[in-house]
Amino acid sequence: MPLTHLDGFGRARMVDVSEKPETVRSATATGRVYMMPDTLRRIRRGKMAKGDVLAIAQVAGVMGAKQVPSLIPLCHPLPLSGVEMDFKEGRSSNPDKDCSITITATVRTHGRTGVEMEAMTAVCAAALTIYDMCKAIDRGISIGDIMLLSKSGGRSGEFRRFRKKNSRPRPRRG
Amino acid sequence: MPLTHLDGFGRARMVDVSEKPETVRSATATGRVYMMPDTLRRIRRGKMAKGDVLAIAQVAGVMGAKQVPSLIPLCHPLPLSGVEMDFKEGRSSNPDKDCSITITATVRTHGRTGVEMEAMTAVCAAALTIYDMCKAIDRGISIGDIMLLSKSGGRSGEFRRFRKKNSRPRPRRG
Amino acid sequence: MPLTHLDGFGRARMVDVSEKPETVRSATATGRVYMMPDTLRRIRRGKMAKGDVLAIAQVAGVMGAKQVPSLIPLCHPLPLSGVEMDFKEGRSSNPDKDCSITITATVRTHGRTGVEMEAMTAVCAAALTIYDMCKAIDRGISIGDIMLLSKSGGRSGEFRRFRKKNSRPRPRRG
Amino acid sequence: MPLTHLDGFGRARMVDVSEKPETVRSATATGRVYMMPDTLRRIRRGKMAKGDVLAIAQVAGVMGAKQVPSLIPLCHPLPLSGVEMDFKEGRSSNPDKDCSITITATVRTHGRTGVEMEAMTAVCAAALTIYDMCKAIDRGISIGDIMLLSKSGGRSGEFRRFRKKNSRPRPRRG
Amino acid sequence: MPLTHLDGFGRARMVDVSEKPETVRSATATGRVYMMPDTLRRIRRGKMAKGDVLAIAQVAGVMGAKQVPSLIPLCHPLPLSGVEMDFKEGRSSNPDKDCSITITATVRTHGRTGVEMEAMTAVCAAALTIYDMCKAIDRGISIGDIMLLSKSGGRSGEFRRFRKKNSRPRPRRG
Amino acid sequence: MPLTHLDGFGRARMVDVSEKPETVRSATATGRVYMMPDTLRRIRRGKMAKGDVLAIAQVAGVMGAKQVPSLIPLCHPLPLSGVEMDFKEGRSSNPDKDCSITITATVRTHGRTGVEMEAMTAVCAAALTIYDMCKAIDRGISIGDIMLLSKSGGRSGEFRRFRKKNSRPRPRRG
Repeated sequence: MPLTHLDGFGRARMVDVSEKPETVRSATATGRVYMMPDTLRRIRRGKMAKGDVLAIAQVAGVMGAKQVPSLIPLCHPLPLSGVEMDFKEGRSSNPDKDCSITITATVRTHGRTGVEMEAMTAVCAAALTIYDMCKAIDRGISIGDIMLLSKSGGRSGEFRRFRKKNSRPRPRRG
Repeated sequence: MPLTHLDGFGRARMVDVSEKPETVRSATATGRVYMMPDTLRRIRRGKMAKGDVLAIAQVAGVMGAKQVPSLIPLCHPLPLSGVEMDFKEGRSSNPDKDCSITITATVRTHGRTGVEMEAMTAVCAAALTIYDMCKAIDRGISIGDIMLLSKSGGRSGEFRRFRKKNSRPRPRRG
Repeated sequence: MPLTHLDGFGRARMVDVSEKPETVRSATATGRVYMMPDTLRRIRRGKMAKGDVLAIAQVAGVMGAKQVPSLIPLCHPLPLSGVEMDFKEGRSSNPDKDCSITITATVRTHGRTGVEMEAMTAVCAAALTIYDMCKAIDRGISIGDIMLLSKSGGRSGEFRRFRKKNSRPRPRRG
Repeated sequence: MPLTHLDGFGRARMVDVSEKPETVRSATATGRVYMMPDTLRRIRRGKMAKGDVLAIAQVAGVMGAKQVPSLIPLCHPLPLSGVEMDFKEGRSSNPDKDCSITITATVRTHGRTGVEMEAMTAVCAAALTIYDMCKAIDRGISIGDIMLLSKSGGRSGEFRRFRKKNSRPRPRRG
Repeated sequence: MPLTHLDGFGRARMVDVSEKPETVRSATATGRVYMMPDTLRRIRRGKMAKGDVLAIAQVAGVMGAKQVPSLIPLCHPLPLSGVEMDFKEGRSSNPDKDCSITITATVRTHGRTGVEMEAMTAVCAAALTIYDMCKAIDRGISIGDIMLLSKSGGRSGEFRRFRKKNSRPRPRRG
Repeated sequence: MPLTHLDGFGRARMVDVSEKPETVRSATATGRVYMMPDTLRRIRRGKMAKGDVLAIAQVAGVMGAKQVPSLIPLCHPLPLSGVEMDFKEGRSSNPDKDCSITITATVRTHGRTGVEMEAMTAVCAAALTIYDMCKAIDRGISIGDIMLLSKSGGRSGEFRRFRKKNSRPRPRRG
């Protein structure tokens, strides 16, 4: 099977989907922001007291999903019908080890092509925003484990990365 | 030290940098796209023959750096003076293990604030574009190890994540 | 009834409308720009002679409607099917009192959610453009009375702010 | 004095400011969102409990300031150096009368032209976002009293709409 | 027949298409970039060796098609379902005369209005990108012969600029 | 001299200009829209009576100049300090031959790199807008002769395409 975004001469194209039927489609992606325990504590405290890093990251995720057409060169512009973001803390019992925030984004559309890129981009935009808001106090922050968790609708059918619904995303590594 | 992007009431603000001097600043970020050996082979072959996944990812990275103001809510809009992207393959000798492409982005400006977010976002946009162009043949692709490698210019001075210049980026993990 | 744009944890989401039927929808919004009589005279004269502040404000209104997805964080990106703008002068007989221009915007779509925000934003963009073009000669200009006049299509049915079709918008004030 | 954004033939132009000196400039604008007492209560409660309409409106304001070049046709693209938003409640003692939220936006730059439009647009974007998040429970919401409060820097010097620093903005009306 | 984008008062509007049926539509446009023989040689050589001006121009064309709503004031925002670009060299046997690259763009949608502007804009964006990448070595480059070649779908039926399918576009000139 | 936008491996980069001095720079570009005599008559009449195709094209040109960073992949984002557009009719004495409108755009900045692309893009955006507004009555419209007329400021010094200041742009053709 050839790479679908390249034409006969190997150059970029936006794949023609005009003959595909319009169906309800959804995609869920995830990713993690690794940080020092103290950074996670400040984010948590800020939220309880008066600031809310995650509220801003959540807005960034939703808006990021809408910017896919200008960010990902060969993606189709699509009318999105829903975006939901979720954040979970991953605490480490060892104070010397990094903690993390796991981001999950679910995007839905009623269209002719899927919304995987919108879900993946929402995760990236939220992760970059957390990084931006915390970089002054923790330069070692890194972002990883960005991957598609599941997708439904469309010709290629259901996809689910992990068998059991509640199993944790396992980082893939060479 | 408080989180700089939150005002007295814990709400979002774009930090005032109007009194900071204009200096030449640069930032370098990196990230990795993990994929199956066959996917890496196709990208490489496509490039040699007539297509070029990485050429398109490179354009996406440069353009992504320019979209930081609309993607990262509290980032300053800046006149960038240069963006350079680089891609390196990480082959695995074990055919069952994943291979990877390492992306590096260097951004420069002559401004009142740094370009870390531009470098980080360039890496993400390039990584998402590689994912987009290969997802039809390899749904297990994941993106990780996105982090700042170095930065210079500005009040906070030089930053370098790894001591030795040629040492490989080591993923940080809890 | 809860605030629809907040999820179970009170955070932002783009409400899922993928199961709603596609219907023809329209929304009409209005707003006013208050200015000195001399400013209104110049706008009018400019238009008759060779310039046209309102022509540029009208373009700004139509283009503003199209920028809703990037301007209003939780709004759905929608394929708009029509935008119309109208401007009416409100002259004051007392030369010491301010005059005004009333802006009306009507937006239509064939979609799964309404276009109220597109109509409201079109009015704001046109009003801000009038302000921008006249601020050098009249710094006291203010913008007000921005509100939805009517909307049709969709589950919630017809809405009409004022009973009689030709009655003037009455500013709501506490 | 002619309208500055029109050329010799009365058509649109972006006024040439390349010979003006770069100075630190700031502008503060304000505006109000009028709503039912119950809507204001829900916004306040949402914020204390788990949601935060104003946090999202604040992000929208900051991001709106950055979208001025694409929203206001003849505005100069500028590197902003700071944006701050503030929200104050205006309660009404009479339960039948509307309450309001007053939005204030201050924008700073180090540039060749002012940031009035950025401050005005930040206010509009925040107001429209509040409207968007509450429109399902209160269709009568209106936006008004959008005006420049003060500006400094640049050839035309200091401007202050109200004499005393702490006096409340007084709506101008014909 | 009146100009369709102007309302009763001669001002701009986005024409209402909400009652038109959704059909599959496509449009093909073309254009030429004229350059010195040596410039064409470098583009060709670059592509064969390791650079690829046309690969970047192709990405620019696809992304340009997606930017029509923000670039062409009265155009409808549409969900595009496919974009394809093609480049052909026009060599000149006389070394003193200019050579050219002919750009062709085909855009498809399943919508209520056509995609002529998307095809025309894709051609312009690709041509401007070629100009940008070569202007340092050839300032005499010019862009011309931008026109619609064909369009199908929609009420106005099939349009074809040239009778025979393989005839070359003939520049129209007064 | 190598193509400046390609790195050592022939891939895209945004050329580093951070060490270049900030100077006042300007660029003037031109282009022509060819149309039937009747179309030109309607544009002229519309303008005099109540509509104004050229007023909208002029706004599109100014706004197009500001969209260069998102439209031309490797262009630097720049704070523009001025944009001016001009339109001239080219009438044909032979009623069977096409008429034309000549567009001229002048862009200025105080920056580290030139504004040729901004001037070229302003011309294209204005030309495409004229095409868009007239295509329903004249499908044979074509756009051509887009080229740089002059540029000043910067290391490469003054450039002037035509010797005599008042000579008409002569189309270059192979």
